[in-house]
Formats: sequence, C-alpha cells, structure tokens
Amino acid sequence: MPDTAKSDAANAAAPLRLGIAGLGTVGTGLVQIIQTHGDLMTARAGRGVTISAVSARSRDKDRGIDLSAYDWEDDAVALAQRDDIDVFVELMGGSDGPAKDATEAAIAAGKDVVTANKALLALHGQALSVAAEEAGRLIRFEAAVAGGIPVIKALTEGLAGNEITRVMGVMNGTCNYILTRMENAGLTYQQAFDEADGLGYLEADPNLDVGGIDAGHKLALLAAIAFGTQVDFDAVELEGIGAITIEDITQAADMGYKIKLLGVAQMTGRGLEQRMSPCLVPDTSPLGQLQGGTNMVVLEGDAVGQIVLRGAGAGSGPTASAVMADIIDIARGLRLPTFGQPAKGLRAARAARAAVPAPYYLRLQLVDKPGALAKVAGALGEAGISIDRMRQYGHDDTSAPVLIVTHKTTRMALDEAIEGFGKTRVVHGTPVAIRIEAV
Amino acid sequence: MPDTAKSDAANAAAPLRLGIAGLGTVGTGLVQIIQTHGDLMTARAGRGVTISAVSARSRDKDRGIDLSAYDWEDDAVALAQRDDIDVFVELMGGSDGPAKDATEAAIAAGKDVVTANKALLALHGQALSVAAEEAGRLIRFEAAVAGGIPVIKALTEGLAGNEITRVMGVMNGTCNYILTRMENAGLTYQQAFDEADGLGYLEADPNLDVGGIDAGHKLALLAAIAFGTQVDFDAVELEGIGAITIEDITQAADMGYKIKLLGVAQMTGRGLEQRMSPCLVPDTSPLGQLQGGTNMVVLEGDAVGQIVLRGAGAGSGPTASAVMADIIDIARGLRLPTFGQPAKGLRAARAARAAVPAPYYLRLQLVDKPGALAKVAGALGEAGISIDRMRQYGHDDTSAPVLIVTHKTTRMALDEAIEGFGKTRVVHGTPVAIRIEAV
Repeated sequence: MPDTAKSDAANAAAPLRLGIAGLGTVGTGLVQIIQTHGDLMTARAGRGVTISAVSARSRDKDRGIDLSAYDWEDDAVALAQRDDIDVFVELMGGSDGPAKDATEAAIAAGKDVVTANKALLALHGQALSVAAEEAGRLIRFEAAVAGGIPVIKALTEGLAGNEITRVMGVMNGTCNYILTRMENAGLTYQQAFDEADGLGYLEADPNLDVGGIDAGHKLALLAAIAFGTQVDFDAVELEGIGAITIEDITQAADMGYKIKLLGVAQMTGRGLEQRMSPCLVPDTSPLGQLQGGTNMVVLEGDAVGQIVLRGAGAGSGPTASAVMADIIDIARGLRLPTFGQPAKGLRAARAARAAVPAPYYLRLQLVDKPGALAKVAGALGEAGISIDRMRQYGHDDTSAPVLIVTHKTTRMALDEAIEGFGKTRVVHGTPVAIRIEAV
Repeated sequence: MPDTAKSDAANAAAPLRLGIAGLGTVGTGLVQIIQTHGDLMTARAGRGVTISAVSARSRDKDRGIDLSAYDWEDDAVALAQRDDIDVFVELMGGSDGPAKDATEAAIAAGKDVVTANKALLALHGQALSVAAEEAGRLIRFEAAVAGGIPVIKALTEGLAGNEITRVMGVMNGTCNYILTRMENAGLTYQQAFDEADGLGYLEADPNLDVGGIDAGHKLALLAAIAFGTQVDFDAVELEGIGAITIEDITQAADMGYKIKLLGVAQMTGRGLEQRMSPCLVPDTSPLGQLQGGTNMVVLEGDAVGQIVLRGAGAGSGPTASAVMADIIDIARGLRLPTFGQPAKGLRAARAARAAVPAPYYLRLQLVDKPGALAKVAGALGEAGISIDRMRQYGHDDTSAPVLIVTHKTTRMALDEAIEGFGKTRVVHGTPVAIRIEAV
C-alpha cells in the first residue's frame, strides 16, 4: 500500500478522526476513554485521537456521557462515508445488516475500520479483508475476541516467530459463569442459566452463548490467524453446554477435572480441526482454575511453548480498551493485514472433523444384571477403545450409573462404540461423552 | 522520523538483513527459527528475513547449527557497523562492555537494534533510547522481560488505551523454582538453591537471581512503559529470597498464602513505587498457583481491569520467539519509541519508597514469660499498627514462635514497631516481616 503509507505518513501529526457507530456499553466506554485520557493517548500515539461524529439507534437515550461536541448521524452508512473521519469504529454488532453495510461503505470510502464484531468477521471476514486490502485500508478487531485480553495482537505479532501448534480458549464468560455456578453452588443447569439471565449476562438469543456460537466465532478468527487460513466458522464443530448436568460436574471434579466450554483449533495431518465443545480439563491447570465470567486463551507455538492469557472477556471498560488499542495502533502507523497475512494469499483450510484423538469421559446408565458391564466393555473393545478407569458408583432398583475414562481414541470410534452399546440392550438412554483435553 | 519512514517503505520488498551478536542458547534458537521457518516468516512479515553475519566469543564451538552461510565477525562492534545489516541483534548480555559498545555503534551506524538484554536497558535504557531516537532508529526488547511472554507488546500496545494502575510479576524463574521446591519437597533454601545450581538454572553471579536484581531490571523496564517515566533501576527496592525459610513457607501455606518473589510497580500520590521482594499472595490467585520456572506478569489498567500473562520466562525457544517477534515487527514497518513514548519527553519519576500500605506477615520468637505477648502487641499499637490475626504455635523451653498478620500498614510503621520490639526485651533475634500483596 505505498500510496496509503505515504499519505498516512504525511498526516502523522494531524489527529486521527473517528466516527463511532453504536453507543452501547462498549461505545460509551470508548467515548469515556477518549474524553478522560486525551493527553495520555496523544503522548502514546504521537498524535491526537478525536471523535468527529457518532451514530446509534436512539439519539435521546441518556448514556451518561456528553456527546454534544460530536456530529450525529442517524445512519451508520452515512457516518462511515463522512469526509471528516479517518477510522470507522463499528460497535453495532450483528453479522449482517447495518454493521456489514456500514463496514463495506467505510472501506469503499477509504476509511480504516475498527470493529468489535466477531459475528461479522467470522462470517464475512475473508471477503471484507480482501476488500480492505484492495482499497489499501485496514480492518482491526482486537475487541472481537476475549474482550480486553490483547490476544489478537499476541497471536498476530507477539508469537509471529512461531509455527502455532494449537490455540485454545474459554471465550464465553456467560458459559463459564453458568458452569462455575453449577460447580460451586450446586445449581442445576437451568437454575444457573436463569441466574445468568437475571444478571443480564445472556445475549438476546441465548443460544449464541450456551450453544457455543459466540465462542465459535472467536475461535474461527483465532484459527485464521494462527494457521494462515481463510476464516471458516462453518467448519467449527459446535456443541453447547445445555446437556451438562451437575452429575457430570461432580463426577469430573471427583476425578480431578473441571468441565469448560473449550475452543480448540489445531492443524492436523488431515486438515484444520476447530472445536467448540464442553471438555474436561485438569483442575490444577490454568484453564481448570478459571472461575466465573473471566476469559482465558492459551496459545501454543513451536518455539515459545505455551502462553496463557487471562482477563475480562466482556464489559464496557475491557472491550473499549481493546478497541482503543486498535485505534492507537492505527494512529501510530501500524498497518497489518486483517489476519496477519495478505487476505488474497490465505488458503481455504480443509476441515478435519474430530481428527485428534483424546481420552473421553463416558457416563452411562447400566441395566443391573450380570454381565452388563462386560457387554459394555466388549462394545468399546470392538471399536478399538481401551479403558483407563471405570467405576460403578450409585444404584437404584433397576440400573446403576457407570463412569468410564477411556484411553485416547477418536470421536468416530467413540460414536461407533456408543452405537454398539445400543445393541447390547444393557444401556439405558444416551450415554454422556465428554472429551478430556490435555491442556 | 520521516526520512527513515520513507526509506523503510522503499525497502519494503527487500529482505530485512540481520547481524546477530551472541550465539548462546537464545542466538542459536533464533538462527534455528530463521532457518526452519523462512517461508512462514516471509508470509507474515511481507518480506524475507535473512542473516548477513554473526559474532560470538568462540568461532569453533559446536552449536548444532550450520553457520556456514553467514559471515563471521570476531568483534561485535564491527558486526554492528556492517553495511549489509539493517538490524543489529544483541544477544551477548551484560550491562556494559561489548554489549553496550556494540549497541551504541549500531545506532550510530543507522541500524535498528533488537536486544534481550535487561541489564543494559535497565541501566542505560534512557540514554540509549534518546540516542536511537536522534538517529531515527529503534531499540526493541521484548525478550528482555519474561522470555517468551509478549508482555512488552501487551503493555505498550495492547493496553495503550489504559491508564496503567499497577504492574506485577514473577519474572525470575529460578527464584520461583527454588521457592516451589521448598514448598513442595520441603527442602531448605540452601538445598533448593543447590538443586537449582546443579540444574544450571543460576546465573554465574547467583545474586542476580536470588538477590532479585535480574527481576528488578525487568520490573524497571515495565514500569517505564507503564507510567511513561524514565527507566530507573536504582529506585527499585530490592529484597532477595535468601532469608525465606521453610517455616515461613509452611506457615504462609497454612493461612492460604504462597510466598513469591514478586515485583510490583505502581504510581502513588508520592511518586513511583517499584518493589522486588518476597510477598505473600493468596494461594488461589493466578500468581499463587504459579509453579516452577514459569513466569507470570499481571497488568492492571483503569479500563481493562486485570490482565494476566503466563509462560516460559527463559530458555532457547521462548526467548528466541520474543526476539523474532521484534524482528518481524521491524520487517512489517512498525516503528515505535523504545518505551512507547518519545524518550526525550519521558520524565524522571520521583521514587516513592514503601508508600503503599499493605497487611504484613510477621514471625517472631517470643520469650516465654507472662505479659510478653502484650508487650509485642503494645509495640505494634504504638506504631499505629492493628492486628488482624495472631497465633502462638510451637514451643521450646525458653521461647515460642508467634505469627502475626497485621491490618494494612506501611513498611515505615512496621520498621518502627520492630524497633519497638527490641526495647521490650521479649523478642529473640530479628522478626521476619513479609508483605501480603493483594493480587
């Protein structure tokens, strides 16, 4: 981008002018940072950062901040096209509709874009970054993944000297809140869900949280950077936390594990595996010790080993902090491709589903009659699965719960074994199977 | 730096040429990254990264890598001045002597500098960064603090939107190894020290590790970035781990604490406080849970809250990863002042020693006679210190150990109380006093 670079250099002393679309908690937090820390930001960026205009659904809403110095636009697209902005800050959310329209309009109008919108980029990131590249503009999205944790920067820049081997993360605070409340307060899933709902933690469509979709969007973004591939949310294997019971949490704890909604992305011989699903992790690991709404991302590289990042994954201040970091990067003249490498050169990854073997936790209800356990063990053996630990722990009149921890196996073999259980006629209902991730 | 920026832009497609001084574990690790990941680095940086020449003490030593493609220089200064290098990579170590000479020579010759040298920058960082700025060149030092953890980047860039309120860190893996071995294996300090020595974990001058100097260097560098002040290692209050006993580790554990060599920097109303000293931290906190040689840095900002970063603080791969990240940043055209703001504008911080109050752990040996405890409590009261918890826990013929946890107090008041203990004539020897840091 030689022309761009030159004009950016020429403007180095002029303030960087923002148009902010969306004045919810994050937008409000951003305005507060700029209003209260103007001198500090100028000292760090080497130039001022100013707001030219803002846009939101309601102009009259009291947001507790003074917006009188900024022009108002009812239409985000109009805001994105204003001559007096250099950077369009998209904080509206939504994978399509106004957020997408305005982002496209901003790029077409020659603006850089800073966004907190994980859904937009997980679904349209490749096309948008190609468009930005062709226009010589940037899209930055630190705030889209794990809130205030500077994980996009850590992965794209801080670990740029590594071949990344695995990326993991607990990146939906609401799910981690629900799981830790079940664990610590003995609530059922529904009770913990209702509590989170009452606290306003859930998205308007709760399935975005508890179905793993929101966290899956984030994982897809991290995977694209980590492995130099086109972002591909559709290839993320998604499993939510709705089927997790206290029983499983208790039994897992008893064996030294916690259950987390864990995202894992790794490149395998068969392609890129991206999973967002409940997993057992050792309770002594940083991931296992993560409580409440906090997020954690684990980055693994061939040189650096394992890096763990922990912090607030949501909220006004933390998310605005990430947005502001992107803005200051632009003010400082840092110009990187959206996903760390030119978008046009990114290849589409072959999706490898359930490729990496792991031990599994299995809980099943066994008919109480002689030979039942042997039949289950036999079905596992036929699928090539060996047993690490097994125990039968409670009992009612007709059946008994059995816990099995397998040695490493694939999800495919496990599904085969579970199908085999059906034929034995000694297993009641559907067994619970949860992967045990080595973290 | 407009001229620099223009010539850098013109060279954007040309490879970035390195001269590497120092081929110990880090230098060797860096050469390996460049040799094995050339294509990946080029894809990420947008240009190649090549090595023109290297330098080290011994040319003949077998380092397990092929150096035949690179020119050899016996003299690091000559290497730094070569026409065919763009970046001088200083991996020799040492706060003065060849490392300083060569770094100054590199800047004078118009080279950017990447260094892993915490001592050099902690002592001469201000002068070197002014010199670099005047020459339009960069000094980057991600590898100097906490090895592979991208903490310089997280603080300088990732949290640039925050007023930083506190920086903490366990940044000397050897000390943390010794303390966790004492804790887990019941070794005495000397036994754990000898074990670490046998494993090659200690510096040639062990006091750099166990005296807190090495970690203090790192803290001073972080503080300069965090608070926009001139790096000032002399103002770091240093206390090593040599006086920590198993007794204290055991008693601390019993109360729910771990003892860590913890660095803390924060801006107070009375100036910048920088401490590197043993502290008690809650055993459930991320810092308390840190085992062995791993490092952890905690960054706190007004918007982002608390960010925790964890990873390998030393070793060939992790440190080389950090060096490579700096090199790729330069190759990508990122040009920031050494400490995040122009060095000429950095102010010298007023040093505030022991300004921030905290609870303290006190262990003292009390003469076994009536009224002794009352006299100790009286001395504390006279210094304005109130007691949170107290217990007398063992006993020999003439004296008994007593543990006291105070409410928040200053180190100055505590020293006054300890002086008061002397006058009571009921305290044997010198009391142990360890700060309890709220983390």
